[in-house]
Amino acid sequence: MPRIGTPREPGYASTPRQLARNAAILDAARRLGERHGLERVQMSDVAAHAGVALGTLYRYYPSKHHLFAAALTSSIAALPEPTAGSADSVGAAPADPVAAVRDFLGTAAGNLLAEPQLARAMLVSVNVIRSAADTPADPVMPQRILSIAGIDAPSEEDRRLVRMVEQCMYGILTWATAGQLDAAAAVADVRYACELLLAPWRIQG
Amino acid sequence: MPRIGTPREPGYASTPRQLARNAAILDAARRLGERHGLERVQMSDVAAHAGVALGTLYRYYPSKHHLFAAALTSSIAALPEPTAGSADSVGAAPADPVAAVRDFLGTAAGNLLAEPQLARAMLVSVNVIRSAADTPADPVMPQRILSIAGIDAPSEEDRRLVRMVEQCMYGILTWATAGQLDAAAAVADVRYACELLLAPWRIQG
Repeated sequence: MPRIGTPREPGYASTPRQLARNAAILDAARRLGERHGLERVQMSDVAAHAGVALGTLYRYYPSKHHLFAAALTSSIAALPEPTAGSADSVGAAPADPVAAVRDFLGTAAGNLLAEPQLARAMLVSVNVIRSAADTPADPVMPQRILSIAGIDAPSEEDRRLVRMVEQCMYGILTWATAGQLDAAAAVADVRYACELLLAPWRIQG
Repeated sequence: MPRIGTPREPGYASTPRQLARNAAILDAARRLGERHGLERVQMSDVAAHAGVALGTLYRYYPSKHHLFAAALTSSIAALPEPTAGSADSVGAAPADPVAAVRDFLGTAAGNLLAEPQLARAMLVSVNVIRSAADTPADPVMPQRILSIAGIDAPSEEDRRLVRMVEQCMYGILTWATAGQLDAAAAVADVRYACELLLAPWRIQG
């Protein structure tokens, strides 16, 4: 059974020292997750590798699922903006918002699946966290997608399309990390799902 | 942590008596799941309500997640074919395969979300089962979608579109059962995702 603790965000990581500590925790989780897989990562090892007390780690992340779900969010937040020709100029809306999001999420999927044990740890955790009642929706992924599409003032329809792309991508990645789909096919599916689900942006624009 | 046992299908439920016993188990799981929610359902209560020994229940389903994932599969298998005007005649391909699948999955989503505790138990379980390595892909949902679309000899592309619809639907339903989306919005999203993801069937046909 997925047993998770009370949802709690590391919201107090606001001083430079706290932010550095949080970054060290997530970095340790990523390295140990890729090496050992979700089930064999011990919270005490994460604390030791990050150089924090175990109690501190649990204050930030009440369970391994909270920890690895946060690692995924921070991985997505850290992905570079797409650089290749999809934007007319820096800061402007891309000429083709669908292609921009497709390239970004395709690259993100490929990067995640290149570390399969870590990807599985993060996706299992996200599924558990998202299944828990009262977990607040994570705004990082939708905000990145809207930003890459050059949409500053999203309509209800825009938010809905982004939500469906996000659901579909997590589904495809979960499927891939469970060994149902090879990484290349999963990346191709993510790209194709973006083309199909975001088609209204092309028809409107 | 999701801890699940060795994947094992109730493949030996082949005699009428075994099939009846399996049906009684899944029915008990559904009733208790809706009443108590995943965490508070006890395998021993399921066995008692189904009139089987606890050891028998565990031979069929090594964990609650296997049990509730199977309950979802059998619920989907039991959904009636869409009847309203989308088919030209019984057994023929529907005039609009996208509308036929959209109506079927929209109805399925609405039915599932009408029993929120059970829906959550089944979706959390499906996510856990699907995240486990070496769980075979469940063919029931893809086969139903292809059948409703009137596709007898699916191409690689058809299978891919169906896979993406399935991923997206489970994602939307997971989101809804976690309280991030109300049931009406989730049903509308499922219908819209079908329209967008299956658009190639309209363009081709």
